[in-house]
Amino acid sequence: MTTQPLSIDRAKSARRIERDIETLAGPNYTRSEEAIRRYAYTPEYRNTLDYFIGELEALGFEHYEDPVGTLVARNRPAGEKVFGVGSHCDSNRNGGKYDGTMGVVAALEVCRLNEEMGLGLPLQLVSFLEEEGSGFGQMLLGSRIIAQRVSEEDLREEFHAVDDGRPFWEHAEEAGYKPGRWRKAVYILDDMIGWIELHIEQARVLQDTENRLGVVNAIAGYVHADVTVQGRSDHAGATPMDFRQDAGLVAAECMLELERLAREAGKGTVGTVGEMELRPNLINAVPGRARFSLDIRGADEDGFRHVARDIAAFAEEAAERRGMTAEYVQRQTLPATPLDGRVAGALEESAEGSGEPYMVMHSGAAHDTMSIADRVPSAMVFVPCKDGISHSPEEDADPADAALGAEIMLNAIKKFVGDEN
Amino acid sequence: MTTQPLSIDRAKSARRIERDIETLAGPNYTRSEEAIRRYAYTPEYRNTLDYFIGELEALGFEHYEDPVGTLVARNRPAGEKVFGVGSHCDSNRNGGKYDGTMGVVAALEVCRLNEEMGLGLPLQLVSFLEEEGSGFGQMLLGSRIIAQRVSEEDLREEFHAVDDGRPFWEHAEEAGYKPGRWRKAVYILDDMIGWIELHIEQARVLQDTENRLGVVNAIAGYVHADVTVQGRSDHAGATPMDFRQDAGLVAAECMLELERLAREAGKGTVGTVGEMELRPNLINAVPGRARFSLDIRGADEDGFRHVARDIAAFAEEAAERRGMTAEYVQRQTLPATPLDGRVAGALEESAEGSGEPYMVMHSGAAHDTMSIADRVPSAMVFVPCKDGISHSPEEDADPADAALGAEIMLNAIKKFVGDEN
Repeated sequence: MTTQPLSIDRAKSARRIERDIETLAGPNYTRSEEAIRRYAYTPEYRNTLDYFIGELEALGFEHYEDPVGTLVARNRPAGEKVFGVGSHCDSNRNGGKYDGTMGVVAALEVCRLNEEMGLGLPLQLVSFLEEEGSGFGQMLLGSRIIAQRVSEEDLREEFHAVDDGRPFWEHAEEAGYKPGRWRKAVYILDDMIGWIELHIEQARVLQDTENRLGVVNAIAGYVHADVTVQGRSDHAGATPMDFRQDAGLVAAECMLELERLAREAGKGTVGTVGEMELRPNLINAVPGRARFSLDIRGADEDGFRHVARDIAAFAEEAAERRGMTAEYVQRQTLPATPLDGRVAGALEESAEGSGEPYMVMHSGAAHDTMSIADRVPSAMVFVPCKDGISHSPEEDADPADAALGAEIMLNAIKKFVGDEN
Repeated sequence: MTTQPLSIDRAKSARRIERDIETLAGPNYTRSEEAIRRYAYTPEYRNTLDYFIGELEALGFEHYEDPVGTLVARNRPAGEKVFGVGSHCDSNRNGGKYDGTMGVVAALEVCRLNEEMGLGLPLQLVSFLEEEGSGFGQMLLGSRIIAQRVSEEDLREEFHAVDDGRPFWEHAEEAGYKPGRWRKAVYILDDMIGWIELHIEQARVLQDTENRLGVVNAIAGYVHADVTVQGRSDHAGATPMDFRQDAGLVAAECMLELERLAREAGKGTVGTVGEMELRPNLINAVPGRARFSLDIRGADEDGFRHVARDIAAFAEEAAERRGMTAEYVQRQTLPATPLDGRVAGALEESAEGSGEPYMVMHSGAAHDTMSIADRVPSAMVFVPCKDGISHSPEEDADPADAALGAEIMLNAIKKFVGDEN
């Protein structure tokens, strides 16, 4: 079945999206006057869910919240196939208006357009709980619970509120949820034949290449690790160059080698030393110890894993060459998530049809879509954000891009659902 | 006039030196139970001066304190030529027993031996006020006052007590001194025909080369500076390598280049990046800013100045190559201080005569001797300290080495005074 692409009134959609976003940046929806600060089980978060519920009820959607608070709304009864759209509406502690929320708003706009244009597409909007980890220090928490990527012990004992240190479980119960039934949350995925999440890019590639849309066909995996180099602190004036074990110099060699390795790996693999700590950190002391972080990511699983292995080995050798030792300790790792070729292909076709500049890319940042992509054919849409800034009140994005995103989501879903039938 | 070298009872001298040092590490002489903490105008510092005065009076020395509190004791009346020995007896805030104090104690031992052996050498012991800057944040303060390397405004208004923020001037007056007469202090130097300061090395060269003595023929000058690289902070996962302005990488290049430049300069020139600060210093953020310190020193004035100029230029170029900027700002600088060939030569001859392993070296650290070396022919003697540790309660040194130091000082002074007459 071939159809002409739908053309929506982009200006009208942009106005609605802007209104939603500005509303949700108002005082009832954030705990901070300087930033968006909104996380699970706060009144501001509740108000945000209620705003979406109000808008979705007006469209005739049924809605419920899963056993811990992820919002699900659908225009088909349970058991019928639906196509999923959504993101998260919690924020960083010192966040902006767009990260997450613009994805839920764009999903809402898809639902509105579906009703308004009488398309009759079967849709399910999902707003995942606690993507940012601002409430409980756990990223992607709602979607990981749905994907059963946590344990009961985690929820009962291990995950604590940042604010008061009490367990997630207690907070969920106090908010009126039934965390004891968390395993049921996986059923959210059962009826979903596909999933698209729109999100701001959180980098500057779209802006700098002058693309209005990114069709995301993979989410990078990552390794987070630390390297600690143990040298010897000496008087910086009195210790000749040949008598030193300067841990800072091993760190410097590793920083440059990481850059080289990431470039050599290619395929979008990236490597960053973001944290650096010298000890004793005094102008007149040779650093006796250096600790630095590694953030290594890529959509190409082999590529970024190799970089991580190579830099760990390099650090050890570089330290040894200077008579020191280096220890590599992994903090955390996640595999790369390939997204679905058919969903991404439908998005690409729709982007092509929109006449607007777009590119196919992978996501370097983690998203809830990672949690569900192995069970539901998934892809993402990125829209530009100013100068790549996110997780900051400075965050800025254009509702017109989100409207364009809603248009290509709508077209992609229409095509995908048509192909399925 | 040629003479046989004097042989002293080294074990006896070592015992006396050890007794002095252990006494001055007792509770009346330090404000801290965990470390030596002793600085100008405290009761503990007063007790320390009084200890030396008691010992020197027993040797028949006259003594006085200069207009701010530097202790001077001599066995010849004013106007007669004397040879100076001494150091400082204030400490770092969290210091050890040997830094400074061992030099005054060794000077006292020289005075004792002179009396005991009936050598009749004309001696002046000086214990400079506030070398470490623990009281007023100003290093070499007493010797700089003597050398007229401060201004009246500094003393009246600019130099403040670390503890209460009040001016040096007020504290000096309250302690019974007459800071208004500070310019008179220069007369301490008038009668001095030579000067030797013994000090712990504060590095590990003597220990690691198994030398018991260092004859110091120069004191390194230095440049202290900061380089700030301004790049751009981006999401570490979402920003491809080619879109980055990673300030940390410029810092890494500078660290390695500084090492290369210092080695290339040779002649004991050293360069250290001791402090490093990345911003925002998060594992998942490309460093948008890097600030690092430079400590560049050498006894070869041209050598270390060149390194400072070259690294400043390199930082600018390295930043520019990556589309960033780097700013070099000097904090402080002091020229190298050549010491006197005759005094150092007499020490070397005496060290040779002692039969113990010694080396000729320069001092990488600053010492009071820097303040007076342009007016009085000066040299220094270094003794080993364990693992190069100083400015710490862990500081350790061997009284036997200080006794050996006293022996070669005595021989050098005898030769020097003999040659003068």
